[in-house]
Amino acid sequence: MTMSDLNPADAAFAAELRHVLPDEILRTPDPAYLEEPRGQWHGAGGLLVLPRSTGEVAAAVRAAARARVPVVPYGGGTGLVGGQVMPDAPAPMILSLERMRAVRGIYPDENVIVAEASAVLADVQAAAQAADRLFPLSLAAEGTARIGGTLSTNAGGVNVLRYGNARELCLGLEAVLPDGSVWNGLKRLRKDNTGYDLRGLLIGAEGTLGVITAASLRLFPRPATRATGVFVVPSPRAALRLLATARARIGEGVTAFELISGQGMRFLSETGCAARAPFDEIPDWAVLIELGLGPAAAPEAVLVGLFEAALGEGLAMDGVIAHSQAQSAALWAMREQIPEANKRIGSISSHDISLPLSVIPDFLERAPGVVAALGPFRINAFGHLGDGNLHFNAFPPPGKSKADYPKARAAVARAVHDLVAEYDGSFSAEHGVGRLKVGELERYGDPAKLAAMRAIKAALDPAGIMNPGAVLALGRQDNAPPG
Amino acid sequence: MTMSDLNPADAAFAAELRHVLPDEILRTPDPAYLEEPRGQWHGAGGLLVLPRSTGEVAAAVRAAARARVPVVPYGGGTGLVGGQVMPDAPAPMILSLERMRAVRGIYPDENVIVAEASAVLADVQAAAQAADRLFPLSLAAEGTARIGGTLSTNAGGVNVLRYGNARELCLGLEAVLPDGSVWNGLKRLRKDNTGYDLRGLLIGAEGTLGVITAASLRLFPRPATRATGVFVVPSPRAALRLLATARARIGEGVTAFELISGQGMRFLSETGCAARAPFDEIPDWAVLIELGLGPAAAPEAVLVGLFEAALGEGLAMDGVIAHSQAQSAALWAMREQIPEANKRIGSISSHDISLPLSVIPDFLERAPGVVAALGPFRINAFGHLGDGNLHFNAFPPPGKSKADYPKARAAVARAVHDLVAEYDGSFSAEHGVGRLKVGELERYGDPAKLAAMRAIKAALDPAGIMNPGAVLALGRQDNAPPG
Repeated sequence: MTMSDLNPADAAFAAELRHVLPDEILRTPDPAYLEEPRGQWHGAGGLLVLPRSTGEVAAAVRAAARARVPVVPYGGGTGLVGGQVMPDAPAPMILSLERMRAVRGIYPDENVIVAEASAVLADVQAAAQAADRLFPLSLAAEGTARIGGTLSTNAGGVNVLRYGNARELCLGLEAVLPDGSVWNGLKRLRKDNTGYDLRGLLIGAEGTLGVITAASLRLFPRPATRATGVFVVPSPRAALRLLATARARIGEGVTAFELISGQGMRFLSETGCAARAPFDEIPDWAVLIELGLGPAAAPEAVLVGLFEAALGEGLAMDGVIAHSQAQSAALWAMREQIPEANKRIGSISSHDISLPLSVIPDFLERAPGVVAALGPFRINAFGHLGDGNLHFNAFPPPGKSKADYPKARAAVARAVHDLVAEYDGSFSAEHGVGRLKVGELERYGDPAKLAAMRAIKAALDPAGIMNPGAVLALGRQDNAPPG
Repeated sequence: MTMSDLNPADAAFAAELRHVLPDEILRTPDPAYLEEPRGQWHGAGGLLVLPRSTGEVAAAVRAAARARVPVVPYGGGTGLVGGQVMPDAPAPMILSLERMRAVRGIYPDENVIVAEASAVLADVQAAAQAADRLFPLSLAAEGTARIGGTLSTNAGGVNVLRYGNARELCLGLEAVLPDGSVWNGLKRLRKDNTGYDLRGLLIGAEGTLGVITAASLRLFPRPATRATGVFVVPSPRAALRLLATARARIGEGVTAFELISGQGMRFLSETGCAARAPFDEIPDWAVLIELGLGPAAAPEAVLVGLFEAALGEGLAMDGVIAHSQAQSAALWAMREQIPEANKRIGSISSHDISLPLSVIPDFLERAPGVVAALGPFRINAFGHLGDGNLHFNAFPPPGKSKADYPKARAAVARAVHDLVAEYDGSFSAEHGVGRLKVGELERYGDPAKLAAMRAIKAALDPAGIMNPGAVLALGRQDNAPPG
């Protein structure tokens, strides 16, 4: 398929839609729907549709399929790879699910919650907590991100180590497929081997294979006791040994294990962020460790024991353990404000990479040199070390801005991603491909997998209306005459 | 596609294969390859191919795709739904991966093992144990079942409660797709959002979308301490409350929670199985509970504490807690020999069902009546209660055999599965669809999902060569002229 086979969501299409949908859910998109957080793309604005029900989503998609109008599903708009805005003509129908944010049901005895696509991640967490359960998906944008978007991008976050990615937290889906049919797959089952894993396929497809309208999600018992600490470690290699020690001693009780670099901590003060490193002298590397244990446990004492063991083995040199909720929040704020500090500095190039755990130390020894060969850039490497997922970002030197290096981005990204590929890692760990990494997927993706993806896309969305240009490159014959 | 578009794996095809593969890997299949454990189908025997490498698998599939010859991937042959034998003409190429059983690598620091498709499940468990790790997938056939087959069927087993199904234990795959191309997806990554979830799609596709040749699999720390107990419970409703109590007190430490019926225990003695219920009087219901805890824990004491709490709340009436490895093995033997006892009795109809946890008590109150309306049948309901997965099987009355009720199977299965559907459950929890439940999938499956499955099948396997007739019904035009 090519873009030239598609038609704009213009007045004629709006008139078509009015035959099947009430006028009040059709709008002209205001600019907020055409922006994305990193400002790399500006969406083409066609028509905004605000369905209130799965039936209305289906009617809108059916009409788009008939008219061959592109559809951009829209959740919280927090994605970092441009999956939520389509810059190309013809102007799309933006299908925002913002009115579908109900929690349809919560089943504490089953550890299941059923939520609509636009339920805000934090609201789902709160609903779970009100039922004395945990919905563990947690990430910086959780106050804005929606369940549908987090599933469509298979989001990760800080609790993957213990609880898994979005895909692993989802038991079932309700979705509108590209022909406008509704798949009622909202099962509350832990085991269901009845054919192909359409659930897993739609999760992470970034809206290119259909629109998720609701999901049944796993809940967990809330850890009765928690503890948070930040340990100064001599190196990422030591941090990984500390992780192994922690898991051997504490098992699944290790809920988060986040790497923080000295550069990241310095960025916090340089950019005037409120959060601060809890050390007089900024160390080169630290890890934030969170434990979640049972009611009879003493996690602070367990963390102290871990720290003493680490000290003895040379895996830690200093440490802070929170003794109150406020202290714990302050340690987490340090970790969670790093992306904001990064944003204020302005990165040359950001990389959401994952690597086999055991090669991370080698990678972190080599990668700075690879970047230094391209310019005097500062590196902030941080992230979900326990999952092998690093945010490895390059920044301009002090006193300069990214605008001073207009051509560096592509070269830095290429060099970093080539090194990631050499170590059999991934150029997209948790943010998705979106529009940002379509070229990377073509370059580094397995050819047989890419061919299978294209075949699946063509089979489920023969008109190519669903989020065109995300994940998979548009057809090469964009200037061919309309079909 | 229809079967009449396909050609047999005959002498002419064997001659074709000899151009690309060595003669010594081509055989005439002996009868063992044409049988399945329940004796419901007898496979059509064409040609047996025994590749030694992924390259040879690819060459065989490429040749089959060219010649439009059906391919039946063959693992350990332990599947219970007929996925491994194709009874229909034209006779297929049986592609047994039995020579590809190497563990390609084990990465204890990463908690990853990479194994070829025909590695025996028990051998992978043993390799993990030798590296002081746990590969948790565990099921009755683990001494014979192969990794490829357990992934292709998304097998479950006794540890799903804590560790998940086969799909959740798999990080990456190497597979030969239906055109003979090789997908190199053997990543050792916890997070990898680079396009559609082809891994999840091939897992559970039962060989209809390609042939899994190797997998990278998750390992876990081995629980340092364990305890096993069997508690007599007044009812399945009480058993579920006991499960909730156990998880609130012990969290993920509850590794297995298996329901056992009085009928199952009576079958053990009736059929002369070695295992015995550890109670003087056979109770109506019991649960086997296994805990796996950390090095400093005292799981026996924890289990005793749970028992006392259960006794106090009326959730248990009697109990046995193992004080030695041998006693634990004896309790497990009681659970694990029940399928053998069932086999010796000979079931009228067996149902591998799953249900939302909270409706299981209602289901178990109603379902026996539904079966009783069809004949004087005995029910053995048992299984992985913690996952909502029951094996609900109907047997002839004492002194009779299933041969006395030749027409009962379809009616019993229909009645049970209708009730399962009423409770929004699944007719296939962990065994797969195979050839046994193709009709069930057509009857109970969501139409939009089925249409998507057919589209995916046609896209990835346009000639329809991969395990024809499994999962999806063959085309309706089987008597159409060859294409």
